[in-house]
Amino acid sequence: MPDFSLDAFRAAADLVWPHIRRTPLLRGAALSEATGCDVWLKCETFQVTHSFKDRAAFGALLPRLAEARERGIATSSSGNFAQAAAYAGRKLGVAVTVVMMESARPNKVAATRAHGAEIAFCPPDFAPREAALDRLLAETGRLKVHPYDDEFTVRGNGTLGFELLEEAPDAAAVVIPVGGGGLIAGAAAVLKQGDFGGRIYGVQPELNPAFRSALAAGELIPQPFARSIADGLLATAPGATGFALARQYVDGALEASEAEIASATLQLFEDEKVLVEPSGAVAVAALIRDLARGYRGQKVVCVLSGANLDLAGLAEVAATWRRLPTPDALARS
Amino acid sequence: MPDFSLDAFRAAADLVWPHIRRTPLLRGAALSEATGCDVWLKCETFQVTHSFKDRAAFGALLPRLAEARERGIATSSSGNFAQAAAYAGRKLGVAVTVVMMESARPNKVAATRAHGAEIAFCPPDFAPREAALDRLLAETGRLKVHPYDDEFTVRGNGTLGFELLEEAPDAAAVVIPVGGGGLIAGAAAVLKQGDFGGRIYGVQPELNPAFRSALAAGELIPQPFARSIADGLLATAPGATGFALARQYVDGALEASEAEIASATLQLFEDEKVLVEPSGAVAVAALIRDLARGYRGQKVVCVLSGANLDLAGLAEVAATWRRLPTPDALARS
Repeated sequence: MPDFSLDAFRAAADLVWPHIRRTPLLRGAALSEATGCDVWLKCETFQVTHSFKDRAAFGALLPRLAEARERGIATSSSGNFAQAAAYAGRKLGVAVTVVMMESARPNKVAATRAHGAEIAFCPPDFAPREAALDRLLAETGRLKVHPYDDEFTVRGNGTLGFELLEEAPDAAAVVIPVGGGGLIAGAAAVLKQGDFGGRIYGVQPELNPAFRSALAAGELIPQPFARSIADGLLATAPGATGFALARQYVDGALEASEAEIASATLQLFEDEKVLVEPSGAVAVAALIRDLARGYRGQKVVCVLSGANLDLAGLAEVAATWRRLPTPDALARS
Repeated sequence: MPDFSLDAFRAAADLVWPHIRRTPLLRGAALSEATGCDVWLKCETFQVTHSFKDRAAFGALLPRLAEARERGIATSSSGNFAQAAAYAGRKLGVAVTVVMMESARPNKVAATRAHGAEIAFCPPDFAPREAALDRLLAETGRLKVHPYDDEFTVRGNGTLGFELLEEAPDAAAVVIPVGGGGLIAGAAAVLKQGDFGGRIYGVQPELNPAFRSALAAGELIPQPFARSIADGLLATAPGATGFALARQYVDGALEASEAEIASATLQLFEDEKVLVEPSGAVAVAALIRDLARGYRGQKVVCVLSGANLDLAGLAEVAATWRRLPTPDALARS
């Protein structure tokens, strides 16, 4: 078992912080009024590559920088870790190749390329992605960096936990989007080993019950590959490394439908003037759908995990919202 | 002449700060790369009513709160001061009526109403707006609050200057959108009476040369009422109160075309993931068009003054950008 003590997280954080941003925690005035909670938004959208993955990428490279520089790294990603790894690699002098599915959103591919990484495309599912990455590693001798199932990225994500301990120690709940589960693992381990007294919830799209079913069963139960507008939250099972922490430190798993995710994305845009991608809006979607009624009058932090959305993506979100029936929870809210 | 000493600004700031947000100053990584400057974005977009006008509105009400509560206030606005006055009035227990042009953007009208203000509409020009406000004042006995030409709002806006003195004392330039000129007056008076050593520039749309011509002539020369996608920057002359300060403390006036404003709005959206309305993007437009080449390698702060834009507004910006020819400056940038 890797070292996930608070000291180990602190050591990783001291390495990572000089390279990332302390993102603003903004009060969501309109969402507070709408939900009756005291809603705060942790805007990972303002990291340099516009998602929390900067924490993970610098966390992955800095502790083994000499080796990474010598061998270069190879990784796989739906798009946000790709950009972050490319950016961190460029800053630190590490060559980066990323395996991405052909279905990756074009803006994420373009941004990854703009940060100087090489991209290898693979068919759109997780098994071929792993196979493509394995082939690439065998051919090139590069250092493998997993986008989430990796002690280094999880410890890098712990920086978010320390920031929330300082910025919102009195929150009754922290709500975090879950894809591979690396962010919630790192953040929850730090919060709960620190003196955070609130609850921690993970959120995935309804269409991908991987985290929810794993948490319920206490073990990883791979799910079929789903499609969702939350393209960053489609891992068919949480990473084993992070899931061990999540089982210990996470209080519950929530879900949101496509329409609820689209609606939350639009509400953040129109009411809070915060741009998020659908994957980054699921915490707000779950708050509106389920959580708010249990936390009226209490402080709730929603982590907005990313904003890698272009105009075309936003138009698609609006179209999704119009196309799907309004869920009951939204009609009530 | 009203008291615009640093002490007077400080006293106003101490009144106003408890009611407004200290907005984040974010580094514009993509804009820095694109311009060669070290670009920072002061995000007034995250005030509660999503523009700097919260500073102005609380500045207007707090020093004369007893009278404002007793009489209620009446004011006029293109939309952002309307929302801020409505919000401040609701928080402070002051009845608010706002005269708005029939051409005001629907999202601004709706938000003003949502904050509980009464709205009186007038034909779309400044003379009928003044006439409508005068009639209203005569009929109701309300206290008149001018959206910008008023010592109280100007001192309220000084809070921005104090924040920048702390957050970016080493900036070589601060670039500020200009409508009635109240924000630049308050901010510049504080910065220059403080120990800020950089230059301060105001920016208006090319279609409204009111500030530029006033600064060049040293006196107010009312301009014809222009239409621009920067709907908050159409005052046909700067306010006399603020202009006296601007003459003393502002170093230059810049301009941006409709296409440049649209493009800057889209660049902030796509590259920095910051939502602004066109009026809030003019500082970035002027930086790209003119200022960057004189400030390579130096720190430049662009004030993003507001974000009261909905999906329809963003679509209009995109359409404007597609419809208009790409200006040379943008092709070069």
